[in-house]
Amino acid sequence: MFRIPEDNDLLEYINKFALENNINMAWVNVIGALRDIELGYYDVSTGKYVVNKFDGFYELIAGVGNVSLKENKPFTHLHVVIGDREGKAYAGHLVKAKVYVAELLIIEILGEPKLIREHVARNLWLWKPVK
Amino acid sequence: MFRIPEDNDLLEYINKFALENNINMAWVNVIGALRDIELGYYDVSTGKYVVNKFDGFYELIAGVGNVSLKENKPFTHLHVVIGDREGKAYAGHLVKAKVYVAELLIIEILGEPKLIREHVARNLWLWKPVK
Amino acid sequence: MFRIPEDNDLLEYINKFALENNINMAWVNVIGALRDIELGYYDVSTGKYVVNKFDGFYELIAGVGNVSLKENKPFTHLHVVIGDREGKAYAGHLVKAKVYVAELLIIEILGEPKLIREHVARNLWLWKPVK
Repeated sequence: MFRIPEDNDLLEYINKFALENNINMAWVNVIGALRDIELGYYDVSTGKYVVNKFDGFYELIAGVGNVSLKENKPFTHLHVVIGDREGKAYAGHLVKAKVYVAELLIIEILGEPKLIREHVARNLWLWKPVK
Repeated sequence: MFRIPEDNDLLEYINKFALENNINMAWVNVIGALRDIELGYYDVSTGKYVVNKFDGFYELIAGVGNVSLKENKPFTHLHVVIGDREGKAYAGHLVKAKVYVAELLIIEILGEPKLIREHVARNLWLWKPVK
Repeated sequence: MFRIPEDNDLLEYINKFALENNINMAWVNVIGALRDIELGYYDVSTGKYVVNKFDGFYELIAGVGNVSLKENKPFTHLHVVIGDREGKAYAGHLVKAKVYVAELLIIEILGEPKLIREHVARNLWLWKPVK
């Protein structure tokens, strides 16, 4: 549990932290505040992400996600809820955002086999499902 | 931490997983995408759940909840935030939903006494509160 | 993992629980239902929190946050998503709310150094960031 320094890209920071600490699998929770946020929505009919942009500052209410291996490197998959000045909530798959404040919990998961993201189809990189 | 196969009912899957693995208490986080979702809001004045339906596909931004015993079987209580194509957020007590993608963290909690859901009143099944 | 008794202030309850159990660092997840809620949004331009009030009952969809030390006592920092009767989501920094139902997971984090909130500037009490 720690605070990520201001102005980092949130996803890049967690990826780098995982790489440097040799973390291949983990669960993540994060709260704080973000700015200049892009949130994705996966469109099943086109196989592409629709990206919505949120300029300025938003409370980061709940970042929930995980770290696993993608192309041999730790990769962070994070979904976030953000809140605006009126308390309205927005939510999506985090594409990118700058940290204003970020308080992170990262729970490393040990053991084998490691979870690996593979390109299943149309921009979806997924783990093999359990049987 | 694992991926739940597509097309399962999310709650039924977690209930079955807990039963087969003899998990009586657990905390759950889940992200991914869901379809054909029903979210409940408990109306204190009537003692009934109002159910809102969300057809089609939504990002599953944050599923947060737990597993405990209800009528001698593991029972999943999950609240979810979902996001639409414009990044708007909806939220409620999960009644049912089909999995498109679901990446689940389940933290088993051992020890006694086990938490048991009992019918307190008017559709509320709750654990005994701490003193 | 346990249920917080009805009618407590959610933040005061967790603070008291941490103090009585000598918990100085922890991560928190909580779901349930709240009433008479005040959610904050930190306005970077003024350095003050804007507070939005939500009277009546809301589902507590995801409370995500942590406990650390502030002025030598355990202090709970919690962000919440709440849901209304139509399934709409609102979100913010929890200022206060009364518990209707609250199912809490608290994960104590041991070790040194302890995280301490210090007054950085303009109503922001933050941990030192990692380097």
